[in-house]
Parts: sequence; C-alpha cells; structure tokens
Amino acid sequence: MARKVLVLPGDYIGPEIMEEAVKVLRAVDRRFALGIELEHGLLGGAAIDACGVPLPDETLAQAREADAILLGAVGGPKWDGVERHLRPERGLLAIRSELQLFGNLRPAILYPQLADASSLKPELVAGLDLLIVRELTGGIYFGEPRGIRTLENGEREGYNTYKYSESEIRRIGHLAFSLARKRDRRVCSVDKSNVLEATVLWREVMEEVARDYPDVELSHIYVDNAAMQLVMRPKQFDVMVTGNMFGDILSDAAAMLTGSIGMLPSASLDKDGRGMYEPCHGSAPDIAGQGKANPLATILSVAMMLRYTLGSAEAADTIEQAVSDVLDQGLRTPDIHSEGTRLVGTAEMGDAVLAAV
Amino acid sequence: MARKVLVLPGDYIGPEIMEEAVKVLRAVDRRFALGIELEHGLLGGAAIDACGVPLPDETLAQAREADAILLGAVGGPKWDGVERHLRPERGLLAIRSELQLFGNLRPAILYPQLADASSLKPELVAGLDLLIVRELTGGIYFGEPRGIRTLENGEREGYNTYKYSESEIRRIGHLAFSLARKRDRRVCSVDKSNVLEATVLWREVMEEVARDYPDVELSHIYVDNAAMQLVMRPKQFDVMVTGNMFGDILSDAAAMLTGSIGMLPSASLDKDGRGMYEPCHGSAPDIAGQGKANPLATILSVAMMLRYTLGSAEAADTIEQAVSDVLDQGLRTPDIHSEGTRLVGTAEMGDAVLAAV
Ligand SMILES: CC(C)[C@H](C(=O)O)[C@@H](O)C(=O)O
Ligand SMILES: CC(C)[C@H](C(=O)O)[C@@H](O)C(=O)O
Repeated sequence: MARKVLVLPGDYIGPEIMEEAVKVLRAVDRRFALGIELEHGLLGGAAIDACGVPLPDETLAQAREADAILLGAVGGPKWDGVERHLRPERGLLAIRSELQLFGNLRPAILYPQLADASSLKPELVAGLDLLIVRELTGGIYFGEPRGIRTLENGEREGYNTYKYSESEIRRIGHLAFSLARKRDRRVCSVDKSNVLEATVLWREVMEEVARDYPDVELSHIYVDNAAMQLVMRPKQFDVMVTGNMFGDILSDAAAMLTGSIGMLPSASLDKDGRGMYEPCHGSAPDIAGQGKANPLATILSVAMMLRYTLGSAEAADTIEQAVSDVLDQGLRTPDIHSEGTRLVGTAEMGDAVLAAV
Repeated sequence: MARKVLVLPGDYIGPEIMEEAVKVLRAVDRRFALGIELEHGLLGGAAIDACGVPLPDETLAQAREADAILLGAVGGPKWDGVERHLRPERGLLAIRSELQLFGNLRPAILYPQLADASSLKPELVAGLDLLIVRELTGGIYFGEPRGIRTLENGEREGYNTYKYSESEIRRIGHLAFSLARKRDRRVCSVDKSNVLEATVLWREVMEEVARDYPDVELSHIYVDNAAMQLVMRPKQFDVMVTGNMFGDILSDAAAMLTGSIGMLPSASLDKDGRGMYEPCHGSAPDIAGQGKANPLATILSVAMMLRYTLGSAEAADTIEQAVSDVLDQGLRTPDIHSEGTRLVGTAEMGDAVLAAV
C-alpha cells in the first residue's frame, strides 16, 4: 500500500531543513520498505511568489490526496508588505482549517544531552517530558464575527469572537485523554473559567469526557496560573489540553523552557489520524541560506509522522534513536552548541542522522 | 488636605498581610505628616459572607469617595459553591470596571538579595526590572455579547467577545509611554496581529501614540513570542504594554520569573491617577491563619500608592528602602527562605519593616 507524503518546504530555512528531513525519510522508507511516495508543493511565501496566494488550490488538492504532510516553516519579512489576507501565515491557518487538523500535539522534551541549554536551572527541567495538546481549528482564531468597524461615535473598534461548541471541545478532549493513556495518565485542562463563559463550557465538557477515561486523572488550571507553573515547576505536568489561543502561548513558553526549540517537532491531526507535521520553530530569516539551521526538529517531525499517521512505530523509534545518538556523539548546530561539543552545519547534522539510521 | 485610603483586606491571608501593611502606612503617615485617613471595607468572599454579594453598594460608595484603595487578596475554596456571578473574583472585576481602573501596572523586579529564588539561571534574571502595563477594563474580559447558547443543531456553544476601541487603546498606550519616560524609554507592545483583527487596530493605535513620544522607542511582538522571550531573555524588556487577557498571562509568567511573587506589588489606575493597589499574589488559602504569609508585596503596594496616587515619593522611597534593608538583614518569610537566612513570620517581617522605616 502506497503512502503519500506531501512535502511543503516553505520559506527561508524551510527548504534547508527539509532537505535533511527528506534524506532521512527516504532512508527509513527503504530500510523498512514503507512504500512512501513523496510529492512536493508550495505553501506560504514560496506560494505567494509563484502563484500570488499563500495556499494555492493545487496545494490544497495535493494536501487532500496525501496521507501526511511534512512542512518546513513559512513566513518572513519578505512578505511583510503583502496584504493581510494574503500573508504567508494565512496559508498555514487555511490549510489547518480546510483539512480540519484540529489536534495540535506539541511535545516539550528536554534531551538529557542538552540539559544546559535551558534558561531554567537544570534540576527543574532535567527529564522534562510534557505534551501540550492544542485545539487548532476553532476558538478565537476562526470565530466570527471579526473585523474592524466604525462605532456610532466615529471611532474604530477591532473585534474578534472566541467560541467553542461542545463537539469541538469533546473531540480535542478525547484526543488528549487517549494520548495520556500512553503516557503518565494525567490530563491538565487549561481555561479561564473564572472570567470567560466560553471556557466554562470547556471545563464542563472536559469533565464529561473524563468519565470515559476512569484510569486518567483530570485537573483544571487557569491559564495565568498555568503560565506561572510552567516557569516554576514544569515537570508537574504530563498532558496539558487547551484552546487555540492559550495553546499558542503556552506551547511556545513550554518549548522555550527546554532551551532548544530547534529540537521540537509537532503534529496537527484530523479525526482520522491524518496529519501535518512540522518543527515548532519558525522560518528563521536571520540565519537562512547559511547552512546553520538545526534540522533535528524537522527530522523528529518525520518520526512523529511515521508514528501517528503512517503506523510505523519501528521506523519512528529508529529515527528518534538516531537523533539521540548524534547528540551523544557531541554534534551540535549553533542553536544548541556549548563548550566541549562539536559545532556542525545543517547538512552535516542531517548526514550524521542518516548514518545513524 | 486629607487623603482617604480605603482598606479592603479580603480573604484568607488578606487580613494578615494587610495588618502589616497598615502598620507601615500609619508609620510613614506620622513621619511625613501625610494626613491619611483610613477606612475599612468589604470585598470578595468577606463581602459575600457579610452581605451576600462580592461588591456591596456600600463598598463601591466608599471606593468612589476614596483617593486610593489598598486591597489584600480575594477568593478561595470557601466560595467555590457560590453561583458564578456572585464569586469573589466578580467583586474584583466589578470594582475595576466601575472605577474605570484601566491601567494595571505590574512590575517584575528581582531583588539582588533574592537572586537565587528564581527558577531561571541567576545570570539571566539578576537585575531584572520589567514593567508590564496591562489594560484592565476592556478586551475579552468585558466584551459583549458573551455567554453559553444552544445552537440550531442542539449542541451548546460558549462564546466571548474580544474588542478594543481606539480610545481604549490610546489611553493605555499613553500610560505606558509616559511610564517608559521615567525608565529606559522602551515600550514593547504585545499583540497577535497576524491572527486577530482586534489587535491589528491595537498595533496601529500604538504606532500613532508613539508619535507623541519621539524619545521613546516602540517595538511590537506577537504574544507567543513574548512568552518565549520572557523565559529566554527577560532582561531585554523595559515596559511591555498589552491587553487584558494577554496581560493576565504574561504578567503572571513575568512575576514568577523572579521566583518571589510574594514580593511584587501592583497598581490599577484610572485616568486621574486614583488607584487600587494590591499584591500580585492571591489569597493563598493553604497557608492562611498560620502567620506564614509574606507581607512585603502588600507593603510595597503601599509604596506604589504613595508614589502614584498620593504624591509622596519620599514616603514611597522610605518604604522601599526599608524593605531592602530587612532583606539585607537576612529576614525571610517561608516563600523566599533559603539557607543562611533567618526564617520569620508575617508579623515579625512587618515589624522589621516598621523598625526600618
Ligand atoms: C504563524 C501563526 C499564525 C501560528 C499560530 O499562531 O498558530 C504560529 O504561531 C503557530 O503556533 O503555529
Ligand atoms: C482573579 C482574576 C479574575 C484576575 C484576572 O484574571 O484579572 C487575576 O488573575 C488577576 O490577574 O488579577
């Protein structure tokens, strides 16, 4: 059975890190006879340059056909002047929404080899393994009505709508609970139910979903306290589940706790487990074209893709082990470099993983 | 000229820390002949117990009469069963809104004596002095329509409205810029203008306000990146200005960076500089009644009150110096205690500040 993977390299460092990730994907494909078919497409700035829109119809058609999508990174200053609704990020938001990729998994893992990279004291983050499950196709990101209007008194007002229906909350809840079952069986749901009605319903539905998972513990935390606890005692969490906006903020903070956002992959899943996989970091315009970008987050995104969508846990394990091996060998791209380790570039890092696979 | 200060001790540790703060306030009042008149009132759980509502009309009337309000902390598990619209927090939200206390100042300062208390590596936070200016009476906290409704398909949906008008943005902008003038002259405005229209207008108006302050530098950052940068390099910021929701999250994260939230005061100002002053921490039900609470954040709130509303910078300096002195003496409440320092209780700490004043 063929498995179609759509590769969307994106902008700035996107193509550089993607090249390494594709090398690794091809290697495990051969080794485990996975029958993966690769196709390439355009998203974000690259698509704007070629077709004038950040998500061309052709890319969307390719995406619908594919079992999984591997994305580099989109956006950057080159398209700052473009009209708002045509910006690179719009392509990302549109593809998430069109494919109903509602379940965003953002692991924050601290590799023991990189314990020093964190801005937190090592004892607070050593062994950190936290999974943030962020709702990705609803909430204030997509809520209508939205816009900028002129009020009766002549001044303008900007407005957005934050909303979640029971079914939207339920499906992200089920995803979080079933993932917790494969981990430490603890789900912490993040809301602001002391202020926002939308999250009162969120909390209620999470309680309801929890009844189907008596073996998983559910707790609730307000988003402001969650931000504090992440800074103070991040290891207290197993799985955190939250809405689109809070998830955006908390997952970035959590990723940064590890000090090595260049190491963190992410998955965005639909209800059937098809998904889009991408590094947590952005397109890093400042280092683009210099061969300095860390390809490991993208390579680890390939591993996630193999595990969650393509059903090859073995191949996923192999890649993750290979990444751990190259870290053991002391190889480091500039973003994770420290004294006593060997500084390498994007391609050399990719080749080392390839050799270890 | 008499200056009326309304004291609202609040719940759990509220009355304990307030007792110490009032001692200190009375002392500087005598020493500097400030002519301060104190009145006491009820807010939050204490008000629910006495009058059935979290913000009684009498308290509101007292608050309108007062020049400044000194608040302990409200809320706690005792009122968990109370109907949502009567919860202690509602009293807090209502008083902010009724008095139009739109300007929330939340300093995150790391006292050199407490450098070890942070969960971040000392070199990253030593000397941290960041001021978050949070809009407090608008945004999604107060936007209408809001609620939980039943959709046509029979399922329920929770919804809130995020909105800001030009004048709301302008007044918080002016506050942030004028505060920056007394500091390092850098304002960083936090938004999510790549997704939310409400914050597109926010960014635009901040640019417009900046034109009145050519000596102050304005930069913009997305809220997810702001959360990352706070964890990674908090000292890069001088003044951050943002809306109600983002401010709630970021100011708590920033406070926690110092590792000593028990040390941080806050101010909530109206357009004439009248204000409510309170510690950043909550009512700490777990340690209430044990004489363990740190009164310094409330005592430092008194200093802020003297500086921003009562116009006695000298008295404010005296209190701040006294707090620094007791830290130099090695006195520590449990929350900031470390080896080689002397553990003291709430009253002993208050007395030490009093002696130093
Ligand atoms: C680029 C932006 C629209 C996006 C988001 O806010 O979702 C990004 O920050 C992310 O988290 O993937
Ligand atoms: C208690 C709550 C309503 C309040 C808020 O969210 O504003 C608190 O978190 C704060 O920051 O003062």
